[in-house]
Amino acid sequence: MSVHKIGLVGAGRMGSLHAGNAAANARFALAWVADHDSAAAARLAAETGAEATDYETILADPEVKGVIVASSTSSHLENVLAAVRAGKAVFCEKPLSLDADTLAAALPEIEASGSPVFIAFNRRFDPHLAALKRKLAAGEVGSVETVHIVNHDPATPRIDFIPRSGGLFKDFTIHDFDTAAWLLEDSFVEIYAAGACLIDPKIGELGDIDTAKLILRTSRGVLCLISNCRRTGYGYDQRVELFGSNGALRVDNVHVQNVSTLADGGTAETPFPFSFAERYAEAYTAELNHFADVLDGSASPSTGPRDSLRALRLADAAELSARSNAPVRLNPEETR
Amino acid sequence: MSVHKIGLVGAGRMGSLHAGNAAANARFALAWVADHDSAAAARLAAETGAEATDYETILADPEVKGVIVASSTSSHLENVLAAVRAGKAVFCEKPLSLDADTLAAALPEIEASGSPVFIAFNRRFDPHLAALKRKLAAGEVGSVETVHIVNHDPATPRIDFIPRSGGLFKDFTIHDFDTAAWLLEDSFVEIYAAGACLIDPKIGELGDIDTAKLILRTSRGVLCLISNCRRTGYGYDQRVELFGSNGALRVDNVHVQNVSTLADGGTAETPFPFSFAERYAEAYTAELNHFADVLDGSASPSTGPRDSLRALRLADAAELSARSNAPVRLNPEETR
Amino acid sequence: MSVHKIGLVGAGRMGSLHAGNAAANARFALAWVADHDSAAAARLAAETGAEATDYETILADPEVKGVIVASSTSSHLENVLAAVRAGKAVFCEKPLSLDADTLAAALPEIEASGSPVFIAFNRRFDPHLAALKRKLAAGEVGSVETVHIVNHDPATPRIDFIPRSGGLFKDFTIHDFDTAAWLLEDSFVEIYAAGACLIDPKIGELGDIDTAKLILRTSRGVLCLISNCRRTGYGYDQRVELFGSNGALRVDNVHVQNVSTLADGGTAETPFPFSFAERYAEAYTAELNHFADVLDGSASPSTGPRDSLRALRLADAAELSARSNAPVRLNPEETR
Amino acid sequence: MSVHKIGLVGAGRMGSLHAGNAAANARFALAWVADHDSAAAARLAAETGAEATDYETILADPEVKGVIVASSTSSHLENVLAAVRAGKAVFCEKPLSLDADTLAAALPEIEASGSPVFIAFNRRFDPHLAALKRKLAAGEVGSVETVHIVNHDPATPRIDFIPRSGGLFKDFTIHDFDTAAWLLEDSFVEIYAAGACLIDPKIGELGDIDTAKLILRTSRGVLCLISNCRRTGYGYDQRVELFGSNGALRVDNVHVQNVSTLADGGTAETPFPFSFAERYAEAYTAELNHFADVLDGSASPSTGPRDSLRALRLADAAELSARSNAPVRLNPEETR
Repeated sequence: MSVHKIGLVGAGRMGSLHAGNAAANARFALAWVADHDSAAAARLAAETGAEATDYETILADPEVKGVIVASSTSSHLENVLAAVRAGKAVFCEKPLSLDADTLAAALPEIEASGSPVFIAFNRRFDPHLAALKRKLAAGEVGSVETVHIVNHDPATPRIDFIPRSGGLFKDFTIHDFDTAAWLLEDSFVEIYAAGACLIDPKIGELGDIDTAKLILRTSRGVLCLISNCRRTGYGYDQRVELFGSNGALRVDNVHVQNVSTLADGGTAETPFPFSFAERYAEAYTAELNHFADVLDGSASPSTGPRDSLRALRLADAAELSARSNAPVRLNPEETR
Repeated sequence: MSVHKIGLVGAGRMGSLHAGNAAANARFALAWVADHDSAAAARLAAETGAEATDYETILADPEVKGVIVASSTSSHLENVLAAVRAGKAVFCEKPLSLDADTLAAALPEIEASGSPVFIAFNRRFDPHLAALKRKLAAGEVGSVETVHIVNHDPATPRIDFIPRSGGLFKDFTIHDFDTAAWLLEDSFVEIYAAGACLIDPKIGELGDIDTAKLILRTSRGVLCLISNCRRTGYGYDQRVELFGSNGALRVDNVHVQNVSTLADGGTAETPFPFSFAERYAEAYTAELNHFADVLDGSASPSTGPRDSLRALRLADAAELSARSNAPVRLNPEETR
Repeated sequence: MSVHKIGLVGAGRMGSLHAGNAAANARFALAWVADHDSAAAARLAAETGAEATDYETILADPEVKGVIVASSTSSHLENVLAAVRAGKAVFCEKPLSLDADTLAAALPEIEASGSPVFIAFNRRFDPHLAALKRKLAAGEVGSVETVHIVNHDPATPRIDFIPRSGGLFKDFTIHDFDTAAWLLEDSFVEIYAAGACLIDPKIGELGDIDTAKLILRTSRGVLCLISNCRRTGYGYDQRVELFGSNGALRVDNVHVQNVSTLADGGTAETPFPFSFAERYAEAYTAELNHFADVLDGSASPSTGPRDSLRALRLADAAELSARSNAPVRLNPEETR
Repeated sequence: MSVHKIGLVGAGRMGSLHAGNAAANARFALAWVADHDSAAAARLAAETGAEATDYETILADPEVKGVIVASSTSSHLENVLAAVRAGKAVFCEKPLSLDADTLAAALPEIEASGSPVFIAFNRRFDPHLAALKRKLAAGEVGSVETVHIVNHDPATPRIDFIPRSGGLFKDFTIHDFDTAAWLLEDSFVEIYAAGACLIDPKIGELGDIDTAKLILRTSRGVLCLISNCRRTGYGYDQRVELFGSNGALRVDNVHVQNVSTLADGGTAETPFPFSFAERYAEAYTAELNHFADVLDGSASPSTGPRDSLRALRLADAAELSARSNAPVRLNPEETR
């Protein structure tokens, strides 16, 4: 078993999550943590047995094989480009960029660099969704005709996050676009998005929405429903259903604590997770192990910049559809 | 307890169901069964202890208080008009008509007749959906923001039924339009329908679709998703979810036999019902008891011709949306 | 369809339930209601369209084909004997007697009378348990090795019922003895019962228990667990599991309202029933239809006095075991 | 974060599981693996980046802080004693011994040694059971009156394991004895065990049983049901229910893959785990982290030799009860 020396940039919420997982994983030696906020970097480094430094120093360390990019979204692409120029493998939080054209322009350099760049779409590493995909591939329900994805957040984010989120479709629905593409292995020809601001008027004042229902049509004719909202009040509602010619497959919500309480008001199951960190804990561990496999040379990144670009183009089209209140045609070549 | 003498017209599938229920219900004396097919009428009369006759004779019997109209859809309106002209109360299978303008034109006469006309939308009498509505009214989840309705048939109908069905939206989605209106007590401002023929190409050749996903927006801004398909392969998939400001309410599929089998392939629950007759058995009984209450004079019909008209207008709009591939604006006055 | 004129004795809780069902069932004409408390008889007669009278008058009416015996348990046997002497068919609430030897002594006369006597053990008519038995008979899980029955009441009965209940085993466990015998079609060789008074000390002061766990062994070697308690606080907990050589079969609790509420405390299903009347509503209807079949001559009673006697002997043995704190050997001939 | 150098003895099934977990856990440096079978030790060492050696060498290494004892059960006590004599902390697989008196005799030396000895009862580290215990402690269901534990193995072990297993009660039920004691924090006054050989006659020929139902009574009067069997055919059936004065708490089976398949035969959930390694994977990880806490000095072993002794005494009493077919009185002092 090789131990890979790595560095991490971004000491915020996602950076802390990945740093903690890397420190607990015997396949990695997390040596460096960088952040514009040097106090945050120092704090996270102390927690994980790493050292705080700046990103340039990480990239200059010849023993560092790979970097985890978990900085703010607006700097993802720049950090990734710097890493591949330094010959490092990259684990990058989704999305790689908020601007599709900028990302499209950068793709040739990234792909020519030879450095593996892994975009961590966590759903693909969830054991339940992975099992769903295996069952689908095994033909358990014939060919898929329609798909329903429910992706509802437990609570609205801090209001100051909204302006830099990229909007609901790029920040949130982007996961569902990738999930649909991954499960169906198909491109898309049309999208219709109905958005609304039903939860918090402040979100609307900032020009964003907090609720959306989308219908996508794939090249093979599959209809996909996606439902998003920013606040359920009851946890992180994460469900996928595939309806096929011979039946249906379903991943329902996962209960982290499988305990029921029976009382005079009825049977209560423990809440399902209130955070992505809890719901996709296994996925975050599996992502890192996949990155270790990439560093071992035993695997290529299972998702890369092109997956990120496809999801981004779908998000752009969703936004156009919602604003124009009309379905938007898609170029299948660009959503393959 | 009064026993009400009634007659029934229509000895087909729905007529047989209602006749059987009426015969087993001590509040009714089912005296007469009529049908264009006199052999069918005779058969059903024999099974239920009634006598076969023609519809005119039923309407001419002064002891008959009410009639059950379960003939073919195309004759519903005509039979209902004849009944109210004869001063009979009416229990009519949905929909009252397949043509909204014709129905709108007939409404004044029906309403002026003074005869109660009950349109039997079965979902409203389902104990589970009724409990959902009570919980909603009790404020258990705050105000509703979005709704998901899944209404998937177990198997495609006989292909010769398709041309006289009125099309998927009038034959099938019509239930969901009424369910949404009933639960939300709101009118509608917009509808978008994406249809497809994914199951049986013969349905497409006849100009119909077998699969649809719809998004409706109500006057108060609620977004409703409706999913329809003509064949699941696994039973009659009937689910409703309401997402509100304080949580969600859900009616999931009902298992008529609550038996699980645990074997090496996993835990298998008995299939849920493969027919509306089984899934909504309690609703069909409750509908008839509601009609008995109407005949007793202790209740007014809880759904009437205006509900049928609203659902029909929504179905027309859905069809227009699917054909034009664009959202259709609705007149809230017409969908109230 | 024949309509059978019947009478009913016992206007208490069970009598009211059966009278209401008979009045609503078009196969019966409930003509007479009798009770020692003539006001109660009059009230129930008025509710059900019958007339109040005394039991002798019912038995003397030559048009009456059958009687429903739902009087207090201590008078069941006497009322049944009077009915069969009058040539009436009998529907009798369980148990037929609280004293096994008295019942055994009366059996020859009952059986010689030629009148069908049906003892209404409601579990046998529950659609879920009936489906379980069919699956078992179809060999879905191979041969049964062990059985678990949970039968827990929602709330303790009125304390003045305890002294005339016959004790926990005869009043309550008696259902489970019959269920086990019915499902397994086997006799019993041994029983061990551990009882306790954990819920209400007043029950203990009256010499009874409110909680019991039992282990029975059948002639073929099957081990049966039975769990009883008088108060759950969360509803009427009714479960049966069969563990076989190829898997397991399970009937879990039934939710009369299949509605879930998702809120920040978790997912809450509606309580399952708080009363036998609600949980076994379908069974009570089916029992009556079975009795109508018996009156039609198209069926023999599916349970009779010998089933009641077997359950009673098992209850006696359970009581002996609990008091002596030792397993009790059983005569398979007497528990067949 | 300290990294603790440790060694492991026993390269069989449990040893491999713990060695793999230790190697993947950044809090441990697994340096040594020992086994009587030196090829097995070498193989496991190679897989985990450790070196194969003999147990004496491990104990002689002054840098080794603790050892994992996962050798065959018959050598557990001897290996633990050697470790504490060498001043090492111990993580020992349950049970510490198969003979209660031998264990009782060794206890004073173990406890006087000052070395922490942790007996790894995996149930205590299961997140679901741990949540159950927290809810119980929080008073969610009042005071516990009865307990049901289902512990059924998916498939019989290799027949050559039976003679050295210690018998069903010491090998298998021992977990349930510990679970009951841990959850209830109570001692026991009586046990009744009904055993049978229903699955494989070869097990009976070896003098063992494969099926058991037990009833225990605690000092506070709680009644505990335990059900065991060696083969379900449908997975590793692991359930605990607590019935209290205000309701019930339940841990049901866990589905590792939360995927349902809906087909014409019904709704099938993925099987629950077929092995303890899968069902209790999180518990095995948590156990090791607890051991790291012990080595850090931040925790004392949450279970120790006295817990092992209590479970062993209960197993001896169960065996006596089953053989004598009578309840056995227990000394609460010995089952505290």
